[in-house]
Amino acid sequence: MLLALPDVPLPSDSALARAVSELDARLGPSKVDTSEPGREAHAKDESDAVGRLPAAVVHAASTADVATTLAIAERHGVPVTPRAAGTGRTGGAVPVAGGIVLSTTALATIVDIDQEDGLAIVEPGVVLGALYEAVEAEGLFYPPDPNSWRDCTIGGNVAENAGGPRAFKYGVTRDWVRGLEVALVGGRTIRTGRRTSKGVTGYDVTSLLVGSEGTLGVFTEVTLALTRKPAEVATVLSLFVDVRAAAAAVQAVVAAGITPRCLELLDRLALEALRLQGVSFDPRAGALLLTEIDGRAGSLDGELAELGDVLSASGALDVVAAQDAAQRARLWEARSALSRATRKLATYKLSEDVVVPRSKLVLLLEEVDRIGEATGVTYLTYGHAGDGNMHVNFLWNDPAERPRVDDAIGRLMRATVGLGGTLSGEHGIGLSKAPYLPLEHSPELVALQEDLKRAFDPRGLLNPGKIFPRGHKAC
Amino acid sequence: MLLALPDVPLPSDSALARAVSELDARLGPSKVDTSEPGREAHAKDESDAVGRLPAAVVHAASTADVATTLAIAERHGVPVTPRAAGTGRTGGAVPVAGGIVLSTTALATIVDIDQEDGLAIVEPGVVLGALYEAVEAEGLFYPPDPNSWRDCTIGGNVAENAGGPRAFKYGVTRDWVRGLEVALVGGRTIRTGRRTSKGVTGYDVTSLLVGSEGTLGVFTEVTLALTRKPAEVATVLSLFVDVRAAAAAVQAVVAAGITPRCLELLDRLALEALRLQGVSFDPRAGALLLTEIDGRAGSLDGELAELGDVLSASGALDVVAAQDAAQRARLWEARSALSRATRKLATYKLSEDVVVPRSKLVLLLEEVDRIGEATGVTYLTYGHAGDGNMHVNFLWNDPAERPRVDDAIGRLMRATVGLGGTLSGEHGIGLSKAPYLPLEHSPELVALQEDLKRAFDPRGLLNPGKIFPRGHKAC
Repeated sequence: MLLALPDVPLPSDSALARAVSELDARLGPSKVDTSEPGREAHAKDESDAVGRLPAAVVHAASTADVATTLAIAERHGVPVTPRAAGTGRTGGAVPVAGGIVLSTTALATIVDIDQEDGLAIVEPGVVLGALYEAVEAEGLFYPPDPNSWRDCTIGGNVAENAGGPRAFKYGVTRDWVRGLEVALVGGRTIRTGRRTSKGVTGYDVTSLLVGSEGTLGVFTEVTLALTRKPAEVATVLSLFVDVRAAAAAVQAVVAAGITPRCLELLDRLALEALRLQGVSFDPRAGALLLTEIDGRAGSLDGELAELGDVLSASGALDVVAAQDAAQRARLWEARSALSRATRKLATYKLSEDVVVPRSKLVLLLEEVDRIGEATGVTYLTYGHAGDGNMHVNFLWNDPAERPRVDDAIGRLMRATVGLGGTLSGEHGIGLSKAPYLPLEHSPELVALQEDLKRAFDPRGLLNPGKIFPRGHKAC
Repeated sequence: MLLALPDVPLPSDSALARAVSELDARLGPSKVDTSEPGREAHAKDESDAVGRLPAAVVHAASTADVATTLAIAERHGVPVTPRAAGTGRTGGAVPVAGGIVLSTTALATIVDIDQEDGLAIVEPGVVLGALYEAVEAEGLFYPPDPNSWRDCTIGGNVAENAGGPRAFKYGVTRDWVRGLEVALVGGRTIRTGRRTSKGVTGYDVTSLLVGSEGTLGVFTEVTLALTRKPAEVATVLSLFVDVRAAAAAVQAVVAAGITPRCLELLDRLALEALRLQGVSFDPRAGALLLTEIDGRAGSLDGELAELGDVLSASGALDVVAAQDAAQRARLWEARSALSRATRKLATYKLSEDVVVPRSKLVLLLEEVDRIGEATGVTYLTYGHAGDGNMHVNFLWNDPAERPRVDDAIGRLMRATVGLGGTLSGEHGIGLSKAPYLPLEHSPELVALQEDLKRAFDPRGLLNPGKIFPRGHKAC
């Protein structure tokens, strides 16, 4: 069963035909894909949503191509869905009104890496892993690390405000975006932000655009801040009898004034999934904590010793530390294998990414247990415990179970908001969480955001049907 | 000579009278000050701008008072200028259209300090120094440290996105604001943001409001993130022959992977001002660098030694380090005395706070020298070198010199933007920099920001005349 699409205005066939023919004439047919396979491939992403087939996919190769597409779209009143690598989990890149899909993956140049000021100027189609390589070769470091870093692009990272395990110490994508070049519906191109670390000139339009999920503008260039690459990293794996003990250890680590760059938690069912894959753990272990610290050369020994002491004092069954790259990779294996292991457990999987205040982690996990019991849906949980950001994975085999899964998701969203949390820490609202937005945002805040959207896109042509509950079935 | 006020629509006397009488009836006369001294005291701030006398000053004591004031103001079409402690340097709190001044200084309760999740919930009138005391008593730390911390309030800090020396390591106010309660023109109250560290639900309305200089809404409650109080702090004072050598040392410190929390630079004329106050330095010294590192207990020794080595290798004439509080205070004395020392040098002073990419610091200081020569205006420069954020102080004694000062400021703004910099790092645009906004922002970006303003305040009643060049004399 696929996710239901929201009710959005659809363009007329004749408007679409005129728009596609003008795109063809202005950009050249090589950039305008109207083939069936091309259009079908761009009607979906990594979520379970399948959109309405677009009339064409534009592969922009320059800022001018993007601007031209947005000018033509406005002239003919045709919706545009911007798209980068399509690795999103909530349907942000799925075209719900057909129209045009505008891909920026071919805009993939690293324009500049500025050693002295710690900056990278990149096009939106640059793959995150390629950026890592380029900046680390210069002794620099770009911290955000979504799980899809091998495939996802900076454009999508900025659109979704991507996070990752290292967010606990280093923050998320928004914290690293200094400035943007962005094309707006109608074809205007603006530059926002700055190259400097500080600046209070005018409104923070840059932060408003980061995380706007392709609904306000299409990025054509991104200015990112970089930091020095940490000289040393140490990884510590610890096992606990249950998540309550592991969550208490997380609080103890933070209270000790240690700021790990990662604080990842795996629950009992996540460990079971790994055991089924042949990874062996102490049989008493019902939770795993993976902690990583980094810093200047020679600076880690004291902190590492203290981290070990805090974990042991918090009742860890076992604590293993690694400072060289190979040993560290071995400790990360369990965490890395998890997504694959989870996929083998069931035919269907939906991964939610709710966040609660860190002190409410145990309460959240208890709620998840209750939801599993009440709905009968299988689940396992892991994620960024330092941030209170947990990936709750619902698993099922029979499509007929889907209504129960939806029930479980609804319960999880309500429980999260009830604990002072937020619907999404990393994946965005997109299509799949839009019906739940009113759980967290008041009608006044939703209306204000719709007004902001209109300031950028008065006719609602850019990525319609996303974020806002309008047109979606109420949850 | 006072700063010229922009041309903004003024309310009619009858509309004002009706609004004041309704405020009186609804809030009670004790909260509505129509006395001459009260109105005069609220027509100015720490800038050189004097506004048009407001008809009344409302001293709000609750969120409801703020909302009521904004409802009454809209009903009668009367402009409102929100105001906290009035310590701003660019006229942000100065009423340019008369109308009503809405003070939030009486909303001064620290509602909650949450140890476990590292949060403070505060009203906007809480003085920053009082917040420091309250959170540090719990072992927590709120890093932003504008120079006015003894007097300024959180509401003003959020409105201006205040910075300070510690911004180099810890970022500015926006980086620490998790959520806001804000009253809008018309009297709606919304909550934005969250209590959690991560969250990508909807647009980042919170970041848009931070730094909006009272033009979008009036804050009634602020949720701030806190961190653990660093156990140790070390301060290092070093002297150099000139700013070129000091700026090179700044780059060397950063390149060594050291992240001081402060990296403050004083130029030759700043040192001269201090010498006139009886502070003695090595006579060869033409620049001073004050560097501060912090961290966990026992963690600083290695970094401190390396910092000393880097400074010496960069040609420091002298390097003095201090780790205990009394010695540290002594090293800071020079920096702290500077504002006072500067004021004694001349009758009038204007402090600009331009920012350039750190690698352009020397070029900026050379431009400042050229501007001083070309205009004949006396100046001295100090500031946050790590961030490339310099306070250029223009000094004069005869009011007739003011046109030359304005010429110097215009040249400084153009030079800054020419170096890839930004007009303001901390003080905001307010009134005094509004004419220069088009140097940095394109007409399209200015128009977009005006559209965003209209989404919050369609009639332009909230803090008119600020940020945007509209109504200001072109520079």
